[in-house]
Amino acid sequence: MVSSPSVSAETVRFERKRPDVYGDAHPKALLKAIHEDGEFLKPLENQHVASIDQFTPDMLLQLFRLAAKYESNPERFSTALQGKILISAFYEPSTRTRLSFESAWHRLGGDIMSITDRSSTGIAKGESLEDVAEMFNNYGDCVVLRDSNDASVHRMMNTLRIPIINAGNGIDEHPTQAMADLYTIFKWRPELIEKDLPAEQRIRIGIIGVPSKMRTVRSLLKIIAHFPEMVSEISIIHDKREREIFAAGQREALEAKGLTINTYTDMQDVLPELDVVYINAIAWIGDDYETFGNSFKLSKASPFKPDAIVLHPLARGDELATDLDGTPHNWYFSQARGAVFLRKALLTCMVQRAERVMDVI
Amino acid sequence: MVSSPSVSAETVRFERKRPDVYGDAHPKALLKAIHEDGEFLKPLENQHVASIDQFTPDMLLQLFRLAAKYESNPERFSTALQGKILISAFYEPSTRTRLSFESAWHRLGGDIMSITDRSSTGIAKGESLEDVAEMFNNYGDCVVLRDSNDASVHRMMNTLRIPIINAGNGIDEHPTQAMADLYTIFKWRPELIEKDLPAEQRIRIGIIGVPSKMRTVRSLLKIIAHFPEMVSEISIIHDKREREIFAAGQREALEAKGLTINTYTDMQDVLPELDVVYINAIAWIGDDYETFGNSFKLSKASPFKPDAIVLHPLARGDELATDLDGTPHNWYFSQARGAVFLRKALLTCMVQRAERVMDVI
Amino acid sequence: MVSSPSVSAETVRFERKRPDVYGDAHPKALLKAIHEDGEFLKPLENQHVASIDQFTPDMLLQLFRLAAKYESNPERFSTALQGKILISAFYEPSTRTRLSFESAWHRLGGDIMSITDRSSTGIAKGESLEDVAEMFNNYGDCVVLRDSNDASVHRMMNTLRIPIINAGNGIDEHPTQAMADLYTIFKWRPELIEKDLPAEQRIRIGIIGVPSKMRTVRSLLKIIAHFPEMVSEISIIHDKREREIFAAGQREALEAKGLTINTYTDMQDVLPELDVVYINAIAWIGDDYETFGNSFKLSKASPFKPDAIVLHPLARGDELATDLDGTPHNWYFSQARGAVFLRKALLTCMVQRAERVMDVI
Repeated sequence: MVSSPSVSAETVRFERKRPDVYGDAHPKALLKAIHEDGEFLKPLENQHVASIDQFTPDMLLQLFRLAAKYESNPERFSTALQGKILISAFYEPSTRTRLSFESAWHRLGGDIMSITDRSSTGIAKGESLEDVAEMFNNYGDCVVLRDSNDASVHRMMNTLRIPIINAGNGIDEHPTQAMADLYTIFKWRPELIEKDLPAEQRIRIGIIGVPSKMRTVRSLLKIIAHFPEMVSEISIIHDKREREIFAAGQREALEAKGLTINTYTDMQDVLPELDVVYINAIAWIGDDYETFGNSFKLSKASPFKPDAIVLHPLARGDELATDLDGTPHNWYFSQARGAVFLRKALLTCMVQRAERVMDVI
Repeated sequence: MVSSPSVSAETVRFERKRPDVYGDAHPKALLKAIHEDGEFLKPLENQHVASIDQFTPDMLLQLFRLAAKYESNPERFSTALQGKILISAFYEPSTRTRLSFESAWHRLGGDIMSITDRSSTGIAKGESLEDVAEMFNNYGDCVVLRDSNDASVHRMMNTLRIPIINAGNGIDEHPTQAMADLYTIFKWRPELIEKDLPAEQRIRIGIIGVPSKMRTVRSLLKIIAHFPEMVSEISIIHDKREREIFAAGQREALEAKGLTINTYTDMQDVLPELDVVYINAIAWIGDDYETFGNSFKLSKASPFKPDAIVLHPLARGDELATDLDGTPHNWYFSQARGAVFLRKALLTCMVQRAERVMDVI
Repeated sequence: MVSSPSVSAETVRFERKRPDVYGDAHPKALLKAIHEDGEFLKPLENQHVASIDQFTPDMLLQLFRLAAKYESNPERFSTALQGKILISAFYEPSTRTRLSFESAWHRLGGDIMSITDRSSTGIAKGESLEDVAEMFNNYGDCVVLRDSNDASVHRMMNTLRIPIINAGNGIDEHPTQAMADLYTIFKWRPELIEKDLPAEQRIRIGIIGVPSKMRTVRSLLKIIAHFPEMVSEISIIHDKREREIFAAGQREALEAKGLTINTYTDMQDVLPELDVVYINAIAWIGDDYETFGNSFKLSKASPFKPDAIVLHPLARGDELATDLDGTPHNWYFSQARGAVFLRKALLTCMVQRAERVMDVI
């Protein structure tokens, strides 16, 4: 047994400042670009968040504005959720999304009760989801749920009298992740929110993933479809061997909203044309996960457009090389950071505390 | 893979208001019926809560009054437990009771540390319960413990210098559940607390369960025995095949306090005579549970007295049909809701904060 | 099934006052003995805490002074960490150390997010520790980590921009435990901090344990080596069959700092000469633990010096008999209690809140 080398004061020193390249995300620019109008947020006081389908563009823009306000003033509003209790129910393993929601709730001064192990819960006693929902009605003010069973959140919505956010249900959706993704894109280029955006300013978004199997991609495509004028094309890059790229009707529904979607199998060929490169390799199937697209790897050497940004919902594996972290393409760290502020905004509205943080009441 | 149907804003809308039939529980009526006298609560500042045996009728009535005060003013007193730490130790799986206690503590402004997995604790290192208790003395202000080993709470009481509440120990007791049950009955009919209650106003309580094996029933019978004048009869309804309905001496001790107890095997026959119908089907034996009385099911079609109320500690299975939920017999949801306020009252007294919430100090 | 004996109000009564013999630890005496100088604490605002190596004697004395200030005023400073979030990551099973840190953080008004089960985390998805650290940067203000893999904390330190405290890494170190141990010794005899301590006042410290395998002992030896003038000798008492008492270079490095170290195999022979008797029997190897020194047991009958004090990091097994608990030798309970105040002091400094609690700013 070797004695570990002496640890000096220098080796343990650290900096709090973020490296410049981590996509500073300019929340202030987005804050200025959107005019505050709290009316569009009011419906959120009585709605569960199950799917991107239920949102409107105006509601999303107001959420992004509030998120940008939070991100521009991270220390303020620390009592907005005082007295409110969040029930954080993650039946499917997660650290990232759970801590993101819990951090958001804590930063606003609320309290949290966590359920992280299905076997230690009443579910183990065979209790119905409807009864679990009625129980939650008595104990908290808001629920966040992740479950590999995609029907759970919908069943609970029938009985809940407090709001629930779907934090990932099976392979179906992950709405707040998609909101965080689009929030990041709009912070990067606020002009993209404009209704009459000149054609040459439209962006081409590449998605390296499988829309039929990844809930992050499913939700992302739906949210981009709320702002079809901002994209020239969605380029889906997939492994040649993938059969079912889209679920039945998925592509048609998106195209019906005005999106141009094309599919590709040669990433190197498409990459130089993309303004936003979104990549994800993990799909959660049941209680386990599969990795797709082993053939696609992004690294510093990939033929990116000079200004292109890379997004990834994380956790990442080999598909996103660490040598990209220190380059200006790295907006995936900014994406993760912004997700906390986006969730702060959504949670604030859902538990009827928006009036505490709006400029105009 | 089928794309899930579009989720519209209508499908995700929800109401916060409770349906009228959920036993509105009239906390204000009970609040008026009991005259406040904080002296009876003072002994709770230096007592663990292990069993219903240790309570007196006056102490219980004052606890119920404080619970009713909390239930009538759910947003008030939100700093009563500020600075106090609860150690929430659930070695036996539970969501319902754990979240009920944690919600109560959070609503009063306290902080919580949870232990939910026996294997991740010091117990795994073979540490004695007495040492675990001495450790808790240094870290918190109050302990709530659920353990399938019924002796654990008693062993810890020897060393603890902070109060502990037994949240269920093996098959022995579950005192706060029984308190919540009786609190519900008194909210339903406040006149039952009167010492000289006319005989015709006495109620007949039916218990569908096994007193020898269910801690909820054992504690419930003990607490009713503190107020023997309110019942005309306790009717125990059990499966014909059950041998040991009562533990040794259990029935005799209850009858010695003035309770009339009879046993029955034909539920349909007895049901029309009952004012309160209490049902429970799960008994926790060791780290597993058994279900008793499969032959007994309550539903909307059961021959209830028109004004009868149904109580169930939940979680429920088939023994309590969901079609009862929307009927005036449903007081089990109110029972669960009231349990949080009852626990708020008890916890407040035990950590010496009653003076912050009493009208007269 | 026997009905448990009736529980009376007397059997459940308890006292909050600690027994006199539990080493009252005189924090006030130490508070007076050390002159406050916050300058020595400033470096802690930008340092992870990985090892005792990185500390200086002056920094340690100022931490002990702050801990003594907290211990003398346990109800004060309850908002010092308001708005700060702790990420409590215990991948190796623990209750004692986790609750000690979490209690410290709660007492100062901060919020906590816990990760207690490796399998429910992102690590299960194969996420790198560097990425986990970048995630923590976005969610919290401080991390406490315990991991059986001793390299984890060092790997995370590379990417973290918030401070991390090593709460035990494999068999390597447990720095805050050693700080709590020395804090206890200085409270017991504050004169030991003096630079020109007369030789006859030096103490002889016995360590019953295995320096090569126990992280608590490794850190303790390092921290004593910061104050070599206070000890006449460190007496290591080990089982005859132990081969590798020290790790390579461990003994030499300590002796180079001025410590006199001798090893013994006969405990009964050495015990009457010891002023401080430190014992530990558990060494964590990987995800399991081994017990060493079954042959050594301390009890009331052991031949202690009359004024000798016994320290043990706890949890204990047979090696430390419970009949010692009620004797004046018992300073291990005081050691556990003081550890919370020591951690309060360290955490306060690391998240840049020392100015809220210092007398002189």
